[in-house]
Amino acid sequence: MMKEILLNAFDMNCIVHQSPGLWRHPRDRARDYRRLDYWLELARTLERGRFDALFIADVLGVYDVYRGDASEALRGAVQVPVNDPLPLVAAMATVTEHLGFGLTASLSFEHPYPFARRLSTLDHLTDGRVGWNIVTSYLESGARNLGQRQQLDHDQRYDLAEEYLEVCYKLWEGSWEAAAVLREAAANRYADPARVHPIDHRGRYFEVPGIHLCEPSPQRTPVLFQAGASSRGTAFAARHAECVFAAAPSKTVLRKVVEGLRHQAEIAGRAPDALKIFNLHTVIVDDSDALARARHREYLDYVDLDGALTLISGWTGLDMAGFDPRQPLAHVHTNAIQSAVEAFSSADPGRVWTPEEVARWVGIGGYGPLSVGSPESVADELEAWVEETGVDGFNLAYAVTPETFEAVVDLLVPELTRRGRYKSEYRSGSLRQKLFGAGDRLAAPHPGAGYRFETKRERLEVAR
Amino acid sequence: MMKEILLNAFDMNCIVHQSPGLWRHPRDRARDYRRLDYWLELARTLERGRFDALFIADVLGVYDVYRGDASEALRGAVQVPVNDPLPLVAAMATVTEHLGFGLTASLSFEHPYPFARRLSTLDHLTDGRVGWNIVTSYLESGARNLGQRQQLDHDQRYDLAEEYLEVCYKLWEGSWEAAAVLREAAANRYADPARVHPIDHRGRYFEVPGIHLCEPSPQRTPVLFQAGASSRGTAFAARHAECVFAAAPSKTVLRKVVEGLRHQAEIAGRAPDALKIFNLHTVIVDDSDALARARHREYLDYVDLDGALTLISGWTGLDMAGFDPRQPLAHVHTNAIQSAVEAFSSADPGRVWTPEEVARWVGIGGYGPLSVGSPESVADELEAWVEETGVDGFNLAYAVTPETFEAVVDLLVPELTRRGRYKSEYRSGSLRQKLFGAGDRLAAPHPGAGYRFETKRERLEVAR
Repeated sequence: MMKEILLNAFDMNCIVHQSPGLWRHPRDRARDYRRLDYWLELARTLERGRFDALFIADVLGVYDVYRGDASEALRGAVQVPVNDPLPLVAAMATVTEHLGFGLTASLSFEHPYPFARRLSTLDHLTDGRVGWNIVTSYLESGARNLGQRQQLDHDQRYDLAEEYLEVCYKLWEGSWEAAAVLREAAANRYADPARVHPIDHRGRYFEVPGIHLCEPSPQRTPVLFQAGASSRGTAFAARHAECVFAAAPSKTVLRKVVEGLRHQAEIAGRAPDALKIFNLHTVIVDDSDALARARHREYLDYVDLDGALTLISGWTGLDMAGFDPRQPLAHVHTNAIQSAVEAFSSADPGRVWTPEEVARWVGIGGYGPLSVGSPESVADELEAWVEETGVDGFNLAYAVTPETFEAVVDLLVPELTRRGRYKSEYRSGSLRQKLFGAGDRLAAPHPGAGYRFETKRERLEVAR
Repeated sequence: MMKEILLNAFDMNCIVHQSPGLWRHPRDRARDYRRLDYWLELARTLERGRFDALFIADVLGVYDVYRGDASEALRGAVQVPVNDPLPLVAAMATVTEHLGFGLTASLSFEHPYPFARRLSTLDHLTDGRVGWNIVTSYLESGARNLGQRQQLDHDQRYDLAEEYLEVCYKLWEGSWEAAAVLREAAANRYADPARVHPIDHRGRYFEVPGIHLCEPSPQRTPVLFQAGASSRGTAFAARHAECVFAAAPSKTVLRKVVEGLRHQAEIAGRAPDALKIFNLHTVIVDDSDALARARHREYLDYVDLDGALTLISGWTGLDMAGFDPRQPLAHVHTNAIQSAVEAFSSADPGRVWTPEEVARWVGIGGYGPLSVGSPESVADELEAWVEETGVDGFNLAYAVTPETFEAVVDLLVPELTRRGRYKSEYRSGSLRQKLFGAGDRLAAPHPGAGYRFETKRERLEVAR
């Protein structure tokens, strides 16, 4: 059986997510991000296209590496202003029945006790359609505003992340037994106190003695997403994530990423296909290849190169203003630049990668690859990505919103469906059930499943 | 001209807010609190009744004083399980145009930098319909789960509260000049970086050097609500709050509270009527007095006395299980009990206030008074409360939800409107504009208005 392709829409509660300058396109509506209608309409469109989920990125800081301050980010609306993604989820759930929602939230911005309650609340209100993109790193400018003089070092961050997840698992999986909620009006008992357990967590970073404040939601633990590129990050993702975001610009690079992740998952005792891997991708599709190419050229006219360099400088931590925009970057000896140049070169070996060329690439959808063409051409390309790399699906960035998503829904989705590469209807159940088909809750050997009160009791009984 | 009466609905994202046991009533729907439809329907009902706002209370902890643990709270669903109120606001905004939303949030649970962004986001999405109930105190059990070994003492709490608000005002009012947002596509400028200012806050509790991440929302600072009963709390409310919640069980007590608050507002340099004061109140209205009384008696059968004592023990910090339920409380020498007994006695001098009697009072809507009768009778009573105490409106608790609110909307609201005591249609504009009629933003002499960048610049120019 052919493998079905999964589709996420990738967005952010701001004007410029990963297409700097395109907000100026006459058909772009990103400026309406402050209005509920804009988001409700997007959610309806994505559900019409049977997207698996809408993923909302987030940063709590500004891109202030390029030219040493946030001026270019503010001028070009590059991920600033940026509003909180959380309130969008419940609003969009009011007009959809199946679409999943992925919320990006950094571990460092909120204590796990109230955070776990926020996610449980969303899982209740959406009837089990919530995912969480676990972010362990963030912009330095965000950390400073939280009174943290400097970020934890890389390894400490992952130690904290492990403990943060442990607290969340204990609250979500271990505090309320399945049988705790009685709702017995006649007996005057809503819950059975004997079956609601304080988690009694005492760790290095957190102390949480009490019970989870929410009764069990459909999925309990939201579907866990992660994007981790470092070796520690990959190991963390392989251990905890159910879905992983990659951003590889070529199949060569992506195949290695996919193989690495599945190998790490096996080391962590999980099945290699327990991970659904999504690569960042931008699709510009139109009725014919020629029309799509014309559309792409039209979009390129709006790319804001300074805006793109603002993003790249923030991502690499290196001020791109320090390089001649038209000189090849090959001679720049930093890991971040070298690996970016190598990755891009594997995608387009003939191109000379100057800052300006990198900016042009990034300007339409970020670091991910771009497919431009008719529905048939783009479907051919996506099939080839899946066949040649083992990836499970795509995290689709937009060039012009909602136009990019509407074109995917109206043109590409029917073509993929016709080929048997895309679901012809949504499966029933929670987001986890839809993605993995095996139930609403985390299952062993995922580490979160080990925190269930029932599992712990079984272990105790076996030990006796 | 007769003073119009303001109405808030008082609710919580949980099963039992302030009517313990009533969730068992056959017509009560509180058990559906986990479903979006339940909240959308409530929002529509309240907007149909032209309620000024829906106020969502919150605690991040459990009531564990009664009998020394949380068992009774869990058994009776007394404010536990309790979900996060924030996601409800954007969802309910999708089906309403005018209704305001008051969100309860404690200063101690989240850093002001991300919190200010959350509120700005809601103010954008609701088009200026958001209020914030500033909570400075909280349940001890909540503090413990955030790793705080004990709460700050009372005065420190207010010092922290002052600084927390200062950070928020700087972010909301002072960071983005009104002229900062350009949205000039042709000139490729979304914002003018020279008009977006880092707040450079360095205080005792917080350091926030950066800019606010959100562009200005309609109200910038949400409408500020507070419920503070201590002298320091009253002074804080008189300085910062635009709306104040009281919970006085008698007119005698309420008149003193209202006079005290308005006097403190004058001391703080504000007009006495710059404060809108809402008293907690429960209304049971039916077509006739007799029918309403029968309905009240029916409700009383469902009151869970242990559930009520659980609430009272949490509020007073005193385990009510230590007292004989049928012995008068008059001899109990603690401030909290004495002032409660005095307050209740002023409402109903003939009654002997035992724990059981207090629980019966609290069991239908909490500490506030109760009006039971025909639309005419209840309207007479509410008018008398306004005339005799100077209060501006009522924070209406429910006995059975949504029945209590539906009866108010269908029976009481038309009667109050007929008497010219209630708006016949919503005013236009933001929540602040609707409540105060003077614009969307905080105005001098409110301290928040002093943080506007433009105000600061004027002061600098005058000083030169």
